[in-house]
Amino acid sequence: MTEREVTEAALTEWRRSLGSEFVILDAVSRGQAETATFSTHQRIPAILRPANLKQVQDCLRIANAHGVPLYPISSGKNWGYGSRVPPADGCALLELGRLDRILDLNEQLGYVTVEPGVTQRQLHAFLQQRQSRLWMDATGSSPDCSLIGNAMERGFGHTPYGDHFAHVCGLQVVLPSGEVIETGFAQFPGCKTAPVGRWGLGPSLDGLFSQSNFGIVTRMTIHLMPAPERFEAFFFRLESADAFPALIEALRDLRLKEILRSSIHIANDYKVLGGLQQYPWEKTSGKTPLRPELMAEFRRELTIGFWNASGGLYGTQAIVAEGKRLLKRALRDVPGKLLFVSEKKLDIAGKFVKPFQMLTGWNLSRTIELAKPVLGLMRGVPTGQQLPSAYWRKRSPAPIDPNPDRDKCGLLWYAPLVPAEGTHVQRATEIVTQTMLEGGFEPSISVTLITARAASCVVSLNYDREIPGEDERARA
Amino acid sequence: MTEREVTEAALTEWRRSLGSEFVILDAVSRGQAETATFSTHQRIPAILRPANLKQVQDCLRIANAHGVPLYPISSGKNWGYGSRVPPADGCALLELGRLDRILDLNEQLGYVTVEPGVTQRQLHAFLQQRQSRLWMDATGSSPDCSLIGNAMERGFGHTPYGDHFAHVCGLQVVLPSGEVIETGFAQFPGCKTAPVGRWGLGPSLDGLFSQSNFGIVTRMTIHLMPAPERFEAFFFRLESADAFPALIEALRDLRLKEILRSSIHIANDYKVLGGLQQYPWEKTSGKTPLRPELMAEFRRELTIGFWNASGGLYGTQAIVAEGKRLLKRALRDVPGKLLFVSEKKLDIAGKFVKPFQMLTGWNLSRTIELAKPVLGLMRGVPTGQQLPSAYWRKRSPAPIDPNPDRDKCGLLWYAPLVPAEGTHVQRATEIVTQTMLEGGFEPSISVTLITARAASCVVSLNYDREIPGEDERARA
Repeated sequence: MTEREVTEAALTEWRRSLGSEFVILDAVSRGQAETATFSTHQRIPAILRPANLKQVQDCLRIANAHGVPLYPISSGKNWGYGSRVPPADGCALLELGRLDRILDLNEQLGYVTVEPGVTQRQLHAFLQQRQSRLWMDATGSSPDCSLIGNAMERGFGHTPYGDHFAHVCGLQVVLPSGEVIETGFAQFPGCKTAPVGRWGLGPSLDGLFSQSNFGIVTRMTIHLMPAPERFEAFFFRLESADAFPALIEALRDLRLKEILRSSIHIANDYKVLGGLQQYPWEKTSGKTPLRPELMAEFRRELTIGFWNASGGLYGTQAIVAEGKRLLKRALRDVPGKLLFVSEKKLDIAGKFVKPFQMLTGWNLSRTIELAKPVLGLMRGVPTGQQLPSAYWRKRSPAPIDPNPDRDKCGLLWYAPLVPAEGTHVQRATEIVTQTMLEGGFEPSISVTLITARAASCVVSLNYDREIPGEDERARA
Repeated sequence: MTEREVTEAALTEWRRSLGSEFVILDAVSRGQAETATFSTHQRIPAILRPANLKQVQDCLRIANAHGVPLYPISSGKNWGYGSRVPPADGCALLELGRLDRILDLNEQLGYVTVEPGVTQRQLHAFLQQRQSRLWMDATGSSPDCSLIGNAMERGFGHTPYGDHFAHVCGLQVVLPSGEVIETGFAQFPGCKTAPVGRWGLGPSLDGLFSQSNFGIVTRMTIHLMPAPERFEAFFFRLESADAFPALIEALRDLRLKEILRSSIHIANDYKVLGGLQQYPWEKTSGKTPLRPELMAEFRRELTIGFWNASGGLYGTQAIVAEGKRLLKRALRDVPGKLLFVSEKKLDIAGKFVKPFQMLTGWNLSRTIELAKPVLGLMRGVPTGQQLPSAYWRKRSPAPIDPNPDRDKCGLLWYAPLVPAEGTHVQRATEIVTQTMLEGGFEPSISVTLITARAASCVVSLNYDREIPGEDERARA
């Protein structure tokens, strides 16, 4: 069944440590864990569900003793990048969801300390319940994804704390040997600087454990921003494809000057359409991919720009007002429409969709539909709204409880980082667009200015795994 | 002479690689390099001065082959923390000052790539000469200190880019074996993201080489901020020692809200006095330490606060104005005097010292004397003005070319990091004050809010190494 057999002796020891019900061998559970949003062939001989640090250590020691490789996951919602499937065959899955304690919250200094099972949804509810003045940063993925998992894979979100790995410290890590180390000032037991000082004393080790398999992070401190007095969002719709480099330059410049302090997301037309609806099977008579000529029709009909930028403005009334002024000035010569939206404005606007569209030509109802959860993300509210876009090429709508693995959604993410310069970004997106269309898929791209200097070109390749041959075509 | 003898064979090989004049053995040079601002006994058998990467690799390979430990320094201006003196006896000194090229400057993306010999002075002159719109961040130490040396030891400065290690990436590192690695995206030859993306692909290694001896950094990219439209400084003089925690809380809060975006420095009375003059030998009839009662007199006479905070406001006219409004509001209930100073204002004020003092009670000439270079530092202009304070306990004034090692200035720095909370900072500074006075030294302290969450309590212990017994007393 698997290349490396897991011996009965290893299973017995794991059962003794975790309890039988947390050493999972049944074929259905294993089969689910072996399923991603693209073709995989790795087999998982067992799923281990430790409940605490000691059990994680036990799992590793037993695995070492019996020569079984382990693959740790937090919540396993890494859709598009491999879900829960280990990179190699025969790895036992170490599922950390039961380590789900929120250990510390400091309102004055702005941080929270969590275990790997703590999800976006859980932290958000916790802050609400505590009536905290702090905001978390959420990634656009499922509300049920793990905070530690996302930070250690260097995910990003939408607030000024969007570069997740840049806002964490004080890791507790179980090494492959089963030993535990703490990073930064946490190496000194009881050190009060552990949750606030990133670098510690001597070499800084945190980076070693990100995007790596050098250890399993079982605790982490995350810095949280205080809620600003005022928050407002901007949306910019680019009306000329040629002006894309100018848009990047203008936004990069404001980001460098820290007028824009959060990640700026710039989605192309295909990406926006995928957020609004499924593949237009009727209009295309069932043909794929969606050709640029038809996309142009959708742009006109739904008032979508070639590129659609959005971001937040945070601060006092005066600072947000100044940000708006500077944004207007910076985009003055870039052909397109700039709109500022506050949550209050959005609520009111919902009631005046028709007259607003007549006056401005902006299709507000579509905008609101897409904008509401985006505004939420900009203030750290997790949303499940972006997940249905994984069902783009399906023939039936996304279910209430979307699960792209289960529902055979085809989804491959690819996120190259390029310098935040107009020409670089333009070139990268051109290469992607051409390649995707030639391959028969829609070039769904969002460019995110994660920092002032670097843009992540997030490409999603969507398809339907139920159509024979699509897995192979996507991979090619 | 040394515990570990450096063999003639090693010297021959080093000479072959570097040329004879760059393998320095003479007793005077070695003696100078063995001298710090406190007592040390480590001997240095040879000083090696490579000119390029290849020679650095040679030095390491030869050292390995002959079992000679190497201690790398960039400019060796680490005064107060050990100068050029290796931590162990018998290390050959690897002096990287000849690797002094500025390899790249990018105005759009805001970065510069340098070698370890590049000093603060050199980069500042280079940016001036290029008429760059970018600002560097300078530490208060000598203009001749190395940028790489300071960043890798995790030094800090005075602009929004003050946390140096947080603003570097793309390291080129020579490992102890002599092999060269590049970190982050620089691991991919020619990768355009190398100078802009901090984390790279896979584990991030940069932290490993900071405050460590795992490798020698021979190239680094430093991010530079664009000059803001407007810059203004604030100075706050605290008039009640009891209100110190309230001051910390108020400033921490503005720092968390990013109204204050740079390191805020808060010096106590002793620290400010040490910046204005040498030890008052006459007034004390030659007795040390300077007692709190006499310090109180100086506070009154020179209009020094118990604590004296300073920081910069950066942005557009409107943003700086808003920062001033918020700072005034935050400090409204903290007993003391708040002053805003721009460089233009400082030039004008210099002409009206007397009437200004009569009107406000603020001794402007002293303030200006201390403030000018501080304002410079806040906009990244290196200064030599802070160095003479190392001569505090000397009987004669600092020379034009201060060199604390040569002139037997006693200087020990100690910089514990504490959470940026009033009670923590208060407690830490109380412990230091009591310990220093009991030991017979002035408690010269500056508290720096390096980040919004952590305060570095920088303590300098100043003495005169020419007075017998002082070395021992200082160390105790």
